[in-house]
Amino acid sequence: MTKTKVLLIGLGGVGTIAAYGLEFEGKSEVSAVVRSDYDLVKNKGYVIESCDYGHIDSYKPSHVYRNIDEAVRQGPYDYVVVSTKNIPDAYPVEASIGKAYTEGVTTIVLLQNGFGIEKPLLQMLPGATVLSGVSMISSTLYHGVVNHENDDLVKFGVFYNGVTPREQQEASCHRFLELYSNSKNKATYDPDVKYTRWRKLIYNATLNSACALTNVDVGRLELFGGIESVAKPAMREIIAIALSDGVELSPADMDVMIESDNGIWYSPSMLVDVRKGNLIENQVILGNALDVARENGIEAPTLTVLYNLLSIVQMRTKEEKKFFELPERRPDPGYKIEY
Amino acid sequence: MTKTKVLLIGLGGVGTIAAYGLEFEGKSEVSAVVRSDYDLVKNKGYVIESCDYGHIDSYKPSHVYRNIDEAVRQGPYDYVVVSTKNIPDAYPVEASIGKAYTEGVTTIVLLQNGFGIEKPLLQMLPGATVLSGVSMISSTLYHGVVNHENDDLVKFGVFYNGVTPREQQEASCHRFLELYSNSKNKATYDPDVKYTRWRKLIYNATLNSACALTNVDVGRLELFGGIESVAKPAMREIIAIALSDGVELSPADMDVMIESDNGIWYSPSMLVDVRKGNLIENQVILGNALDVARENGIEAPTLTVLYNLLSIVQMRTKEEKKFFELPERRPDPGYKIEY
Repeated sequence: MTKTKVLLIGLGGVGTIAAYGLEFEGKSEVSAVVRSDYDLVKNKGYVIESCDYGHIDSYKPSHVYRNIDEAVRQGPYDYVVVSTKNIPDAYPVEASIGKAYTEGVTTIVLLQNGFGIEKPLLQMLPGATVLSGVSMISSTLYHGVVNHENDDLVKFGVFYNGVTPREQQEASCHRFLELYSNSKNKATYDPDVKYTRWRKLIYNATLNSACALTNVDVGRLELFGGIESVAKPAMREIIAIALSDGVELSPADMDVMIESDNGIWYSPSMLVDVRKGNLIENQVILGNALDVARENGIEAPTLTVLYNLLSIVQMRTKEEKKFFELPERRPDPGYKIEY
Repeated sequence: MTKTKVLLIGLGGVGTIAAYGLEFEGKSEVSAVVRSDYDLVKNKGYVIESCDYGHIDSYKPSHVYRNIDEAVRQGPYDYVVVSTKNIPDAYPVEASIGKAYTEGVTTIVLLQNGFGIEKPLLQMLPGATVLSGVSMISSTLYHGVVNHENDDLVKFGVFYNGVTPREQQEASCHRFLELYSNSKNKATYDPDVKYTRWRKLIYNATLNSACALTNVDVGRLELFGGIESVAKPAMREIIAIALSDGVELSPADMDVMIESDNGIWYSPSMLVDVRKGNLIENQVILGNALDVARENGIEAPTLTVLYNLLSIVQMRTKEEKKFFELPERRPDPGYKIEY
């Protein structure tokens, strides 16, 4: 049996477990584009400590490339799985995906956070089959060690492109689901990607945002009054925007999200990123939802303030990461940052 | 000539310059309540580096007390000047002021940030004369050294108590102004304290809040888009709430505040406090203004989110300062913090 060729862009905590799972039963051959850790992965591989797969001393995907161009020369690929952080305001990934895409061959899988993330891709590649992967995984990569702490529960579905037949896109999704599934993980078919992604925003646009801005985990946010004062008003706004977009969410989901990590002091992703000095996914988590609100005339005052504050935090991080440099003294109001 | 007896509560950056200025021409005898730095002040005094007074090797007020009770035994005092940070949710100061107050003798001077700060005091002491001091001073105390970096521009006026004759309260204010003024500083009479305090909120409730939440100074806030997206909407809300309270502010003041520290990367007070791990004055800067908004039915969505986020930050700091301790695991939703 020929193995299915998968190219994975973004070998982080989530991506490594995806790659390992795809190769676990020998159904796929995974090529990975690895930037900063290239030498480490090429020579030693990553250590994996996984609740699903146990301790793995050294994992290297079948092929490891320094950049997308090297990887493309070994194509074409049946699937291109994107598991980078989704930060279009800093690292747009469409150009890389475009290079790795072969019409009639490649299906793209966006295993990433956020809402509306398929749009720039479908604009660039109108007939492409683009799948959504929404993961509940908690897996982090730190100094060459992947710590995978709870079950890899992931849902794959179709971002319908409106061009090619729906059944064809769904068939490709089911093939990927079959490919991804193994005896250890729990991947399921997602019949309504839009619903799934709006629903996840009840958590990410609200709890994740408020925690990132106040430097507290979800449990503290609750005890410190922030769930009542900030998160719930924001959740109600998400529910209203989703409804204007044709998706009916249940207000009962608010409590599900709030109590989803009860028993532990859980730090959501944007809080972790802020603490590490990383850029945050505020554009795809909040910005795109607010675009829908604006288009549909829905008021979202709480989400608007959260988004605007996080956008300032993002610029602070960009300055720290030398995306630009500021002059020694505060300049005149007309000054513009260039980068 | 008998010297006027002044008790000063809060010998920090602002308080030390006030004490020094009051004693500079020998008109007042200042007693100060000093807590953590008592031994340092008693033995060595503070070093002062002042744009108004030059370098002073060692300054000790005429009398230094460990606590309010010791100070009260040496009373009565003509003036009690309060120059602590104003944090009613953590350190209410009314009880101390009450002890130091002698009816018919004492005038109270609140040399502090915020709006509505006289209310709890006038509730406790309905006939007291309470003065407002609004300072533009930039003066910080760090490791026994007071760095006073720009002119001591301060306005004193009356928080009318509605009980004793207005002329009597104003006369007391003018006496204090005469006492405080010397050849180096610039103290003026404030005929409309309410206006002055609402106007200062155009800066403090908006720029100060947004900077504290995003960890950027005012100049960066501007360059990173936060003045347009967060501060200006918040300023318009302050102007609307003030109007509902009978105070007409000029929209032109928005630009005055925004450009007030042009040329330097200025970090406003709540940002400095957050960076130092100190508690913040969010209650008197934002909370009290929002109480007025609620009473008068004025919408203030931006200020509301800013206040609610800062209140979470305040709880985080209280946890760090051991106001309470949390259990090892996130508890059930019914759990309440006690302190």
